[in-house]
Amino acid sequence: MNTVGHLINGQIVTDAARVQDIFNPATGTASKQVALASKATVEDAIAAAQAAFPEWRNTPAIKRARVMFRFKELLEQNADRICEMIGEEHGKISHDAAGELQRGIENVEFACGIPELLKGEYSKNVGPNIDSWSEFQPLGVVAGITPFNFPAMVPMWMFPLAIACGNTFILKPSERDPSSTLFIAQLLQEAGLPDGVLNVVNGDKEAVDVLLTDQRIKAVSFVGSTPIAEYIYSTANANGKRCQALGGAKNHAIIMPDADMDNAVNQLLGAAFGSSGERCMALSVAVAVGDAAADALVAKMSEAMQTLKVGAYSDSSNDFGPVITRQHQQKVVGYIDSAEADGARVVIDGRNPQVAGYEEGFFVGATLIDGVTPAMQSYQEEIFGPVLQVVRVSSMDEAMQLIDDHEYGNGTCIFTRDGEAARYFSDHIQVGMVGINVPLPVPVAYHSFGGWKRSLFGDLHAYGPDGVRFYTKRKTIIQRWPSAGVREGVEFSMPTMK
Amino acid sequence: MNTVGHLINGQIVTDAARVQDIFNPATGTASKQVALASKATVEDAIAAAQAAFPEWRNTPAIKRARVMFRFKELLEQNADRICEMIGEEHGKISHDAAGELQRGIENVEFACGIPELLKGEYSKNVGPNIDSWSEFQPLGVVAGITPFNFPAMVPMWMFPLAIACGNTFILKPSERDPSSTLFIAQLLQEAGLPDGVLNVVNGDKEAVDVLLTDQRIKAVSFVGSTPIAEYIYSTANANGKRCQALGGAKNHAIIMPDADMDNAVNQLLGAAFGSSGERCMALSVAVAVGDAAADALVAKMSEAMQTLKVGAYSDSSNDFGPVITRQHQQKVVGYIDSAEADGARVVIDGRNPQVAGYEEGFFVGATLIDGVTPAMQSYQEEIFGPVLQVVRVSSMDEAMQLIDDHEYGNGTCIFTRDGEAARYFSDHIQVGMVGINVPLPVPVAYHSFGGWKRSLFGDLHAYGPDGVRFYTKRKTIIQRWPSAGVREGVEFSMPTMK
Amino acid sequence: MNTVGHLINGQIVTDAARVQDIFNPATGTASKQVALASKATVEDAIAAAQAAFPEWRNTPAIKRARVMFRFKELLEQNADRICEMIGEEHGKISHDAAGELQRGIENVEFACGIPELLKGEYSKNVGPNIDSWSEFQPLGVVAGITPFNFPAMVPMWMFPLAIACGNTFILKPSERDPSSTLFIAQLLQEAGLPDGVLNVVNGDKEAVDVLLTDQRIKAVSFVGSTPIAEYIYSTANANGKRCQALGGAKNHAIIMPDADMDNAVNQLLGAAFGSSGERCMALSVAVAVGDAAADALVAKMSEAMQTLKVGAYSDSSNDFGPVITRQHQQKVVGYIDSAEADGARVVIDGRNPQVAGYEEGFFVGATLIDGVTPAMQSYQEEIFGPVLQVVRVSSMDEAMQLIDDHEYGNGTCIFTRDGEAARYFSDHIQVGMVGINVPLPVPVAYHSFGGWKRSLFGDLHAYGPDGVRFYTKRKTIIQRWPSAGVREGVEFSMPTMK
Amino acid sequence: MNTVGHLINGQIVTDAARVQDIFNPATGTASKQVALASKATVEDAIAAAQAAFPEWRNTPAIKRARVMFRFKELLEQNADRICEMIGEEHGKISHDAAGELQRGIENVEFACGIPELLKGEYSKNVGPNIDSWSEFQPLGVVAGITPFNFPAMVPMWMFPLAIACGNTFILKPSERDPSSTLFIAQLLQEAGLPDGVLNVVNGDKEAVDVLLTDQRIKAVSFVGSTPIAEYIYSTANANGKRCQALGGAKNHAIIMPDADMDNAVNQLLGAAFGSSGERCMALSVAVAVGDAAADALVAKMSEAMQTLKVGAYSDSSNDFGPVITRQHQQKVVGYIDSAEADGARVVIDGRNPQVAGYEEGFFVGATLIDGVTPAMQSYQEEIFGPVLQVVRVSSMDEAMQLIDDHEYGNGTCIFTRDGEAARYFSDHIQVGMVGINVPLPVPVAYHSFGGWKRSLFGDLHAYGPDGVRFYTKRKTIIQRWPSAGVREGVEFSMPTMK
Repeated sequence: MNTVGHLINGQIVTDAARVQDIFNPATGTASKQVALASKATVEDAIAAAQAAFPEWRNTPAIKRARVMFRFKELLEQNADRICEMIGEEHGKISHDAAGELQRGIENVEFACGIPELLKGEYSKNVGPNIDSWSEFQPLGVVAGITPFNFPAMVPMWMFPLAIACGNTFILKPSERDPSSTLFIAQLLQEAGLPDGVLNVVNGDKEAVDVLLTDQRIKAVSFVGSTPIAEYIYSTANANGKRCQALGGAKNHAIIMPDADMDNAVNQLLGAAFGSSGERCMALSVAVAVGDAAADALVAKMSEAMQTLKVGAYSDSSNDFGPVITRQHQQKVVGYIDSAEADGARVVIDGRNPQVAGYEEGFFVGATLIDGVTPAMQSYQEEIFGPVLQVVRVSSMDEAMQLIDDHEYGNGTCIFTRDGEAARYFSDHIQVGMVGINVPLPVPVAYHSFGGWKRSLFGDLHAYGPDGVRFYTKRKTIIQRWPSAGVREGVEFSMPTMK
Repeated sequence: MNTVGHLINGQIVTDAARVQDIFNPATGTASKQVALASKATVEDAIAAAQAAFPEWRNTPAIKRARVMFRFKELLEQNADRICEMIGEEHGKISHDAAGELQRGIENVEFACGIPELLKGEYSKNVGPNIDSWSEFQPLGVVAGITPFNFPAMVPMWMFPLAIACGNTFILKPSERDPSSTLFIAQLLQEAGLPDGVLNVVNGDKEAVDVLLTDQRIKAVSFVGSTPIAEYIYSTANANGKRCQALGGAKNHAIIMPDADMDNAVNQLLGAAFGSSGERCMALSVAVAVGDAAADALVAKMSEAMQTLKVGAYSDSSNDFGPVITRQHQQKVVGYIDSAEADGARVVIDGRNPQVAGYEEGFFVGATLIDGVTPAMQSYQEEIFGPVLQVVRVSSMDEAMQLIDDHEYGNGTCIFTRDGEAARYFSDHIQVGMVGINVPLPVPVAYHSFGGWKRSLFGDLHAYGPDGVRFYTKRKTIIQRWPSAGVREGVEFSMPTMK
Repeated sequence: MNTVGHLINGQIVTDAARVQDIFNPATGTASKQVALASKATVEDAIAAAQAAFPEWRNTPAIKRARVMFRFKELLEQNADRICEMIGEEHGKISHDAAGELQRGIENVEFACGIPELLKGEYSKNVGPNIDSWSEFQPLGVVAGITPFNFPAMVPMWMFPLAIACGNTFILKPSERDPSSTLFIAQLLQEAGLPDGVLNVVNGDKEAVDVLLTDQRIKAVSFVGSTPIAEYIYSTANANGKRCQALGGAKNHAIIMPDADMDNAVNQLLGAAFGSSGERCMALSVAVAVGDAAADALVAKMSEAMQTLKVGAYSDSSNDFGPVITRQHQQKVVGYIDSAEADGARVVIDGRNPQVAGYEEGFFVGATLIDGVTPAMQSYQEEIFGPVLQVVRVSSMDEAMQLIDDHEYGNGTCIFTRDGEAARYFSDHIQVGMVGINVPLPVPVAYHSFGGWKRSLFGDLHAYGPDGVRFYTKRKTIIQRWPSAGVREGVEFSMPTMK
Repeated sequence: MNTVGHLINGQIVTDAARVQDIFNPATGTASKQVALASKATVEDAIAAAQAAFPEWRNTPAIKRARVMFRFKELLEQNADRICEMIGEEHGKISHDAAGELQRGIENVEFACGIPELLKGEYSKNVGPNIDSWSEFQPLGVVAGITPFNFPAMVPMWMFPLAIACGNTFILKPSERDPSSTLFIAQLLQEAGLPDGVLNVVNGDKEAVDVLLTDQRIKAVSFVGSTPIAEYIYSTANANGKRCQALGGAKNHAIIMPDADMDNAVNQLLGAAFGSSGERCMALSVAVAVGDAAADALVAKMSEAMQTLKVGAYSDSSNDFGPVITRQHQQKVVGYIDSAEADGARVVIDGRNPQVAGYEEGFFVGATLIDGVTPAMQSYQEEIFGPVLQVVRVSSMDEAMQLIDDHEYGNGTCIFTRDGEAARYFSDHIQVGMVGINVPLPVPVAYHSFGGWKRSLFGDLHAYGPDGVRFYTKRKTIIQRWPSAGVREGVEFSMPTMK
């Protein structure tokens, strides 16, 4: 079996002392392995990044940007190959993988604008003949730790911008589906990045803990579940690093009585079931205001879901693929069972999907559950599967209270035609990313991504303008030139002496 | 004896179960006491702030700004009274207190511009007919914990901006010199701030720990020593709050051979001895490049120091006053003793100052020590007294290495006439605030204050633009209006159908 | 009779060779005169401004801002007196004058933030060890020429920001109502502005033409009618000055069938009749979509107009006052006559208002005209009186086409509850200032004011961020320090020689 | 002979009624012709641009940016071919053409960041529940008129940014060397630009006058000589267009006594003679402070100039090529003659260069003239040839006065090591682009290009942030949603009542 290795100082390194299987979730079988980096291997990567930093930091921003311009070209040229790699290890259908990749490329596009983004603030005469300005300098070596669900996109939320800012980078991708990530890193190398500026280490907790404790690492970006995010954040902080750690979500859509229901249903289909619901921005709860709206929603949704196809990534007519592991499949089914046991009504049941030819795959079909209440476990926890739950409330205020009471505050959405309702909702809801008739309000690359409450640990959001601030530190200079010697000719009374 | 109380929900509250003496450091005697808040008292303050938040948050920014405009007027009208209070409890001379107050007022002036500073980013057509924008919303109840050395300025680094951003605030000032701080808070109340928006609690660790753990507090700003800063930062973070914690410093000036030496000496006098060196931006180490520069510096400095006068705050011809406590006086003297014991030369000795009529005051005279080396304890630690140490090096590189090797990275400075040297220094030095011929490079209020390394814990600097970002959270909205019903008249052809 | 003079170099100067009467439009009589500056007087003012420029330009921005902080205080303290002056010469009721003054003060508040607003852009390493930054430097002497309808506000759109940017200023206010303007200028002088920084010259075309041609004037801001604006713009440009010239308007509101009609009517009352319609943002055309909406609008509007009171400024229960001159009164009445002659229906007729005790005043009552069509003269031209005309259309597209076809493009508004209609309207309409359920969409002081089409000549809008750009010129510096002599010690091989 | 045509609505059109020869200035012969557009042809182009506008304006900025990303790739792939075209018609050597092209590409890179650059300003709660924001909307059809000296770069200062902002464009390049410009436009078409968005018309005054008067053109950008710039500016303004018109220059370098003279000479060589001095940023006057500096400068410069080679573009070992026409060659020689006649000393004489094999080429050799005074015609006018004139002064103040007295204020530079001198110079000099030890201070693409005084007509500088502002108009929206009907359920209790 092939073993996926590491990228250290521009070279592929296979540290084979410990390995782990990589599964194809559509077939349920493993045909590759990933090397799990030892402490020494991670330290090699850090040393390479540390060595590459001084020259990279001094490289003009526009030259760093040009590597990103070239990287974008290579990503586009290799899109099919990347999507194939994603499909094989993650299971998502090619159109979905292409969407993920495109979102990743958008972050590279944003990073191409780094000369503009790094502009500091300049003040003339803060005092008489005293000037002051702020510069945004890179931090040094920074690390990223990324989840299985977006092996291409989430790493590209981090390293293109961090590197464009002048940092060097260690990426620890998910060990479930590392191939596309590694290949993408190699493309950046091919685009002209100097050796050591981007390093990839595959691994598990052993590798992560080196990244969290080594004093040479100055910052850590993380995306994953809330308990791990909390651990990462506190450990990184205790070790003198800045950190942004993105965790879990439970994203609600409010369906108002005046909503364009056909549009809402159409939007919800993709938002709830796309990528098998394994997205931190997946829309997993629909809160219908009034029974009329709820009934219409469930009826139209049920009908629309008839056409959804779950299957292997290789057939692009499928709507979504398997979940990531056997264990996770069972967990998702368990949540559906528990909702049913708690009294909810499973309107469309995806617990036993038939996928011909892929009987061992980790599939769960699209599931719609009505009559869910806040007390149910399936409501309180993140399911991370293709399950949409419907909660019925009698007023918009009640719907908003429900959302604000939930532990998570990543994304949310309202479906309405009414300007006042939309404005009230977006103003007051305690959630970081808000959609108005947009069920997956993932900010574009030139804005920033971040949830509130226990969905994000850290002051600054990911990517976009906040990403630039995160990956740089402010230096403020105050300058006064005390004597006018040269200008007034005093210094040159004896020029031959100088 | 009078007891200084708390300001809670617009009222002065004296929680007298526990009190502590307030000393006049010039006389060494106590004539007032400060109440130390119990947990219940702090919780009252939090409850008041929590209750005031919804309405304050909804108040248009320009109206919040207008309270700050009025506050500035009141501060200016009451300047003498505030300086008197500072002098009596802290000991700094009136011109120094006036300077501190002015710096504080500058932060109020900055806060008056909050409508401009809170502008979000608006993008039309992030997709076809889809718009997106970011808002910067207040956090809720936030807290500030401030040190004795700037009882007026440091609190005003925090609460004016936090409040202008729409937050409500709990301030825990130093229990050594709380009177001016409390009076300033009352002026803001008088300026029209609604009850509960700013609350002041005096206290000790009991009060601090409530602020660090209560779930209603969303952020903590701190200025103090590095060990405490580190504790505050990790505790606040572990309790789900954002935090910026500013710690200690050891600020070096490099004296280059081409420096305008008269100017350098003139600048260093105030930077080293002003406010008895009890400033986190005090310039405490002069690094002379070459013995010629060092000899000239020591000679000119020694001469200039003859004119310095230490004494009580009430005589404005004094240059600086006592240190804050008897204990601290002994600590500063101990550092001078240790430098001498370690082989340094005490050129000007301030260990036994004579201040007629104030024999019990906590005075230390201006002290100049030559021949200091990095191995000495007096070099490694922050003295926080009127002591300038001279280190001699043979090159600018050596001088910079010295600075970069030190634990702290708050401020630094170079004295030179040469553009290249200044630029190289400011670019590469690992310090957050850099002066070029400016020995105290405290950023003006419209830039931001922050050290690097172990001088600041947190991503964002204090006050200025970073302060705005710290006191707000980003919310990103994406909006699409799905149907053109009203516009095209469809909705109104058959209104009963709706 | 008293004669209103000029403010030149800090002194009131009365150049009495030519004078003109100032009328009280409520009584129709003149009790004061205004001096009309000769060429020589204007040149004195320019010389004073020119002389004051170098020092004012070098004054740190924060010190310039502090004069504005003090100015704001004085304006607020003298508000009643200013409103009285406005009422006496312009005729507007005290509550309206107070509103105007408040809008003016808001521009002073914005100018207080000038240190932040003047920040330039700083780029490190635009090439290897090459830095570049932009500064926004003041222009020099700049002029403002302002109209009668806002004697306090429109001048304060200009000179506070221009002066805060470091320019010196010549203001030529309207000769109809110059007293409040002059008094306001004196308050700024009292606030600490150095002599010569702000100069006021009263006058007519003779004065204006000096301002437009003198080479020492670097920029001209103008507000008035479109033909004059066009003349000012081309003349100023031909004489090497930058210019922004704001002209006329014909502001339409679209009333959609889903509008909250009570709210719309309530809003329109003030927008159409406030200040007798003598505002460039007055809402003078209501475009109702569908006859149902039109009928409802006319019915509710007619009813609401019953309560409107026209009268003298001194009675604050009046809603609005007289128009500015006898001649203008006749012109407004003429437009109503022509509409009637052209077939429109005068629903509420204000042509012969009865104002007891003020029989000679220049009053026109609130007038509502239905059935107006685009071909009518009263539709094509700016009436500048208390006349609201209703145009009936059958679709929103038709309404928008009407607006886009009009020569002017200052302000416009839509009344609707529908998000899609509002977004489509604000996106596509060819008008610079757009209200959504806001009939007078005058931008707040921290945004910028500007119409499109023939309502504004110039690239940049007035006040706010565009105002800062208008009153400054960009200077870009690129800096490289070629040798490391001092840093590497080379320069000091013979240090004793220096 | 081939005829270079126009690009209209995506098609090459040859309007052959009038043509003009295109010369190869190295050989002095013509082998191609350029079509000169008639009024009708220009109107076709305008109609195409007008038709393409609505869809292009509505295309999301990121999609417009992606055409620019692709355009950059194509420019890089076709760089050699473009440089060849430039050399053949303009005469500049390939390395110089490559530099020009690179500068042009940098503007395309900047335009790739348009989603970030177009962000508007968003303010929540400008009043209670009232929001306001500004959008920067494209103007419509805009035109660019560009000079012969940078056939690739100057057009790319304009159209990439204008188009990225959402405008459609008509480019009228120089008729002397139109081929590279047309080819570049075709590459943008190939990159995916929709037909009609960019149109190129070749022509002379007939074409220009259509662009200046047609009401469909909303803005004009121009680069050329000052008299033409002034004509363009006033004509465009008179026809209701915004305009920025860049004119002539006379760029001075001050050589301070402390300058690193070897570096200064090295820098001046390229700045004075590169591209035969046919650059609006060419450094044509060296002002030496003190005779010692002057003598050293002239001596070292003379020596360095020995190695300069003038010749044909095809030999890349040449330093610079011919001037553009026979007539211009004679004009440059005439200036040298006049300087000599006026008493200046021609130290190095380039009037009769020998270029073997190119005896009919329009060559002028590098020329150094010492002892030039401000009264000489050669000093007062722009020579636009490879001629460096030395003026001797006795102080920096005198040098600065000289610069400030000159009609032009495009670029300038100081050579010094002294921070104070550099800061004083850059602060006070009346020139828009300032170099500190940088003789050609052309701003990078993410800053903006613009001279002061009679070097630029218009408020805003070219390209960079000012370019974005120039190519967009501000629209300010104020929004309030009046009733909470839907949110509170009122609207839906009795829908038939609505």
